[in-house]
Amino acid sequence: MVKVGIVGGTGYTGVELLRILAQHPEAQLAMITSRKEAGTSVADLYPSLRGFVDLPFSDTASADLAQCDVVFYATPHGVAMADAPKMVAAGVRIIDLAADFRIQDPTVFERWYKLSHTCPDLLAEAAYGLPELNRAAIAKARVVANPGCYPTTMQLGFAPLLRNGLVDASHLIADCKSGLSGAGRKAELGTAFSEASDNLKAYGVGGHRHHPETVERLQALSDEAVGLLFTPHLVPMIRGMHSTLYARLKPHAMKTDVQALFEDAYRDEPFVDVLPPGAHPDTRSTRASNMLRIAVHRPDGPDGDTVVLLVVQDNLVKGASGQAVQCMNLMFGLPETMGLRHVPVLP
Amino acid sequence: MVKVGIVGGTGYTGVELLRILAQHPEAQLAMITSRKEAGTSVADLYPSLRGFVDLPFSDTASADLAQCDVVFYATPHGVAMADAPKMVAAGVRIIDLAADFRIQDPTVFERWYKLSHTCPDLLAEAAYGLPELNRAAIAKARVVANPGCYPTTMQLGFAPLLRNGLVDASHLIADCKSGLSGAGRKAELGTAFSEASDNLKAYGVGGHRHHPETVERLQALSDEAVGLLFTPHLVPMIRGMHSTLYARLKPHAMKTDVQALFEDAYRDEPFVDVLPPGAHPDTRSTRASNMLRIAVHRPDGPDGDTVVLLVVQDNLVKGASGQAVQCMNLMFGLPETMGLRHVPVLP
Amino acid sequence: MVKVGIVGGTGYTGVELLRILAQHPEAQLAMITSRKEAGTSVADLYPSLRGFVDLPFSDTASADLAQCDVVFYATPHGVAMADAPKMVAAGVRIIDLAADFRIQDPTVFERWYKLSHTCPDLLAEAAYGLPELNRAAIAKARVVANPGCYPTTMQLGFAPLLRNGLVDASHLIADCKSGLSGAGRKAELGTAFSEASDNLKAYGVGGHRHHPETVERLQALSDEAVGLLFTPHLVPMIRGMHSTLYARLKPHAMKTDVQALFEDAYRDEPFVDVLPPGAHPDTRSTRASNMLRIAVHRPDGPDGDTVVLLVVQDNLVKGASGQAVQCMNLMFGLPETMGLRHVPVLP
Amino acid sequence: MVKVGIVGGTGYTGVELLRILAQHPEAQLAMITSRKEAGTSVADLYPSLRGFVDLPFSDTASADLAQCDVVFYATPHGVAMADAPKMVAAGVRIIDLAADFRIQDPTVFERWYKLSHTCPDLLAEAAYGLPELNRAAIAKARVVANPGCYPTTMQLGFAPLLRNGLVDASHLIADCKSGLSGAGRKAELGTAFSEASDNLKAYGVGGHRHHPETVERLQALSDEAVGLLFTPHLVPMIRGMHSTLYARLKPHAMKTDVQALFEDAYRDEPFVDVLPPGAHPDTRSTRASNMLRIAVHRPDGPDGDTVVLLVVQDNLVKGASGQAVQCMNLMFGLPETMGLRHVPVLP
Repeated sequence: MVKVGIVGGTGYTGVELLRILAQHPEAQLAMITSRKEAGTSVADLYPSLRGFVDLPFSDTASADLAQCDVVFYATPHGVAMADAPKMVAAGVRIIDLAADFRIQDPTVFERWYKLSHTCPDLLAEAAYGLPELNRAAIAKARVVANPGCYPTTMQLGFAPLLRNGLVDASHLIADCKSGLSGAGRKAELGTAFSEASDNLKAYGVGGHRHHPETVERLQALSDEAVGLLFTPHLVPMIRGMHSTLYARLKPHAMKTDVQALFEDAYRDEPFVDVLPPGAHPDTRSTRASNMLRIAVHRPDGPDGDTVVLLVVQDNLVKGASGQAVQCMNLMFGLPETMGLRHVPVLP
Repeated sequence: MVKVGIVGGTGYTGVELLRILAQHPEAQLAMITSRKEAGTSVADLYPSLRGFVDLPFSDTASADLAQCDVVFYATPHGVAMADAPKMVAAGVRIIDLAADFRIQDPTVFERWYKLSHTCPDLLAEAAYGLPELNRAAIAKARVVANPGCYPTTMQLGFAPLLRNGLVDASHLIADCKSGLSGAGRKAELGTAFSEASDNLKAYGVGGHRHHPETVERLQALSDEAVGLLFTPHLVPMIRGMHSTLYARLKPHAMKTDVQALFEDAYRDEPFVDVLPPGAHPDTRSTRASNMLRIAVHRPDGPDGDTVVLLVVQDNLVKGASGQAVQCMNLMFGLPETMGLRHVPVLP
Repeated sequence: MVKVGIVGGTGYTGVELLRILAQHPEAQLAMITSRKEAGTSVADLYPSLRGFVDLPFSDTASADLAQCDVVFYATPHGVAMADAPKMVAAGVRIIDLAADFRIQDPTVFERWYKLSHTCPDLLAEAAYGLPELNRAAIAKARVVANPGCYPTTMQLGFAPLLRNGLVDASHLIADCKSGLSGAGRKAELGTAFSEASDNLKAYGVGGHRHHPETVERLQALSDEAVGLLFTPHLVPMIRGMHSTLYARLKPHAMKTDVQALFEDAYRDEPFVDVLPPGAHPDTRSTRASNMLRIAVHRPDGPDGDTVVLLVVQDNLVKGASGQAVQCMNLMFGLPETMGLRHVPVLP
Repeated sequence: MVKVGIVGGTGYTGVELLRILAQHPEAQLAMITSRKEAGTSVADLYPSLRGFVDLPFSDTASADLAQCDVVFYATPHGVAMADAPKMVAAGVRIIDLAADFRIQDPTVFERWYKLSHTCPDLLAEAAYGLPELNRAAIAKARVVANPGCYPTTMQLGFAPLLRNGLVDASHLIADCKSGLSGAGRKAELGTAFSEASDNLKAYGVGGHRHHPETVERLQALSDEAVGLLFTPHLVPMIRGMHSTLYARLKPHAMKTDVQALFEDAYRDEPFVDVLPPGAHPDTRSTRASNMLRIAVHRPDGPDGDTVVLLVVQDNLVKGASGQAVQCMNLMFGLPETMGLRHVPVLP
């Protein structure tokens, strides 16, 4: 059994970790901390967990996390890197669901997160937790940076095209739509029901933190300079993310069988599902599950040179907590799918 | 392993049976039939089931259901009773998610469903599939009538009060609110998104089929004549049911500790959760799970004689398919909770 | 032209006042104040008002509201009563959309709002702003207490029954469902989209501020002691309120033609629409309009003694800002429907 | 007064025409037809119109539409062109909200709508009803083709760029998101609440009827061959459309002040609102109004050569019925904004 700690268990990624780990055959939930809710029973805050989790929240400051084998940080940015040196020294492995270890370039990190990185050595050794693109490094990592939700869809979508040099890497477009749980469990006016329901808007067109993270990773897959236009939108649904990706094939690649390319790329991946040609995936076909689905389109047109990818996932599972548990499985030599075979909830 | 057949697997209760049974440790999905979709892969109709169910739909007319140990009928009213004699003769047990075996009085059944009952003998022996009130009969039944969604909440709510003769049985009020999946998977104008979203309405105030079903069952619990006013409402949510129940305590019962009464009544029930005093349960605290939760209130007032119960469930799980699997577990001597321990999906 | 001021124009009742008053033929929007947004253009905060309102928010402290003919208080409880004496002395009439002048008994007010009433004289003379029940008093009032949203539905529903002594006044039940805009424009966790969407819950079963307000007013209509059970619920819709009301006819009243009673009671009311028998009104049939609709039901049953009323309105219009403008029209001798003839927005 | 007829008044564009025209100062609603609902009172079908419209639906076959000055066709494709010759001969002007007169090339029309055009002469003379781009022609037209909802946003977005030859016309991208009312008032499974709520999907990536319509019109604005990639998505909201448009500036145009270009282009347009730099418009800022709002962005990046436009409208108003009334105003010499100055409904 893997002894698991969760720091910051009150947000949506925290409660989703609890939903998954409470029934993971090899995970033992040892400790859940919260600054605000210390002493409260987890099941009192989340009645959905009555009968499944009977721990109280521990105080973050005093909790003895060093007894755990792995600690998930479902915290605001900056918390994990403050703890990391001590935890790693104690032999505890870390999976950070925030951004502290996602961007390898500390200058870029500081520009976007307004925080100086406090442990650049651990940053340098940290593995980026996208198993489909980085499995080996995750398995042996002491620190794993769980990817952002949007970046997961953009990378798994563009990767087969970029790795093979098939598209103009300098003008990628990602038009992404996210359910509101991606904004976290917060008292904010912008995500209030009466503001966000029956409404849709773009945001962050001038710049979003998931942009530099994605560009850095896509760049590692491409021989050419990557240019990415990323437009996120808020959609009135709780869970679900739909990224519509556009990339122009290079002249030499016009005859590529793109469908086959994707099927080959992900044939053995348990959590990436390449749909049959012509499909238009619903986000709900992944609801509450760790599946990410991709449909490949190549519309007719004057040139017919553009590939359109439709990528869907549950932003809280494959886009966050499910992916983190997938990493944990790899880190502890467990079957990668263990505890993650939830059938999507539909309708 | 229990060999399971599903007749009419394309509706919401059908796909919910599939979600549950695909991961039930002792169920083997042998056959799923559909008149319209024969030959289609189940996973093509429901991409959420890709990788979990690889059966095609069989033709309802020609499927050899007699090879199954149990057949679930997730069909329109009338289908199960047409098949039942043949199936029972073949030694197959039946769980009907429609209404064919819910109402013991055939005259009442005919008035509300506009169908003559074609197998009154089987109706007479059928067990009403509400385990918390009828466990022993279900375990040995050949035919089980899975209760309606509203009736489940009304019976589990009123039962402790009626069985003990504590309230005026002649003037019960049930003001019930249901998510739209309760209306089934149909092309109907009234349940279209643009009609039903951002809207709420009552329906069936003049009469609803779940009324006679509930009254018949409540009457069996009460020495006095039961009178029930039942007002269902359609609420813009997919899953979820909230029944707000009102009953007036008799003078002799005014000092009853109603909270304790409910806690005692359901202490050992794995799927009925009596919440602490003062709770206001969210429907979502049961989403995609087989839990039903009850909060007991007794508001102050000039008389203070009225008990208000707040009862929530997922209408497709405890209100339909989960309850049916709970019955199956009882019928085949399996642990009652087997395959039904899903953590509610929140948010 | 009536010179109009609005204090606290940033909340939902404030923006709804702006939507209505911006096109009212006899209203001149002179001043809109806000503590937080002083100096901001109204249209910057609410782009929906670009081209319709070109005022900035004035500072609440320094605004010269005494130049107005009438001031609407769309503020937290307590603000209007602090201002009222000064304003009334200056000859300005006041319409308070908060609760300061709703409850005539100051003791009850203090118990529920945790505020001592600072101008009991003005409270005593204030008119309760429900035109259908109190038209004459409103017309000449210096201070009008705009009713709460729930109380409007409960009073217009129960009034014809109570005034005629037809029902048991001691056991009225109001099971009410409200859209989330009723909770106001606030950063709160409970009304966040991801918390409140696809969900329904009751709240305040143990006590809600609209209960004493309603009871006080209903009592004025009834010779008998009024007992009211009031259960509010939060429904995932922006606007809309549906109150399902239950009252038991007295033996002598069993033959009353209740439908005719309601049609007679509201025949000349421009904003109360009694629907044909058997109707189940959608809340959306009143969306963005000042209409309130009532359907009268009397279900069969063992006794058939219970009247069920279905009352719908837009909680922000007839339940708040539209009603306030209706009062303003009366106070200034304008046609009661002036500026309030919006066709409901459907779908 | 303009005598107005509506053919096919039961769908969403029909009821929206009724909402607008019922309060239009110069329109007299003379006749509303429906095949299915002949004889039914309009207000019985749409209780929101009680007190505003007291006409019954006339039978489409026998209605004497020739007495009208103008007839709106809110019908399936094909109906208007069947009637048009007769109506035009009778001196009645026509505004078709369906597609019969939208596409000038009959071959293209037939390919996409599977209908032979039955009055190519009238097609040739028909004016495309987008006032901002075609005002003069509309004013004198006998037949007006009201644009599709998506095409309105795409044309008003791309027009200033294309007319000035600033962008690569061959690789335009329109990633569009529509509320579900755009699918019409129909009993369809795909738009059922339980299917479409809490979900998002793309559709028609391989081809959509609004694509050829848009390309034909954009081509008329551009000296170069237009190539457009159009990806529509269904979003769980009733009303609202958000088109996110991407176009690459040509090298010579890199220094263009695009914001100023748009402000100049639409300075005098009453229904096109160019937002301040940096804005992210909500679809709801146009809800139930005839406004279309545009925000202009030019994100940084390796090249910084791409303009991103965020265009929002209410698909049923500026995207359909409001635009049709705007055309009517032009055709009859009325002020263009008459009857169309609704304040958007927010929240």
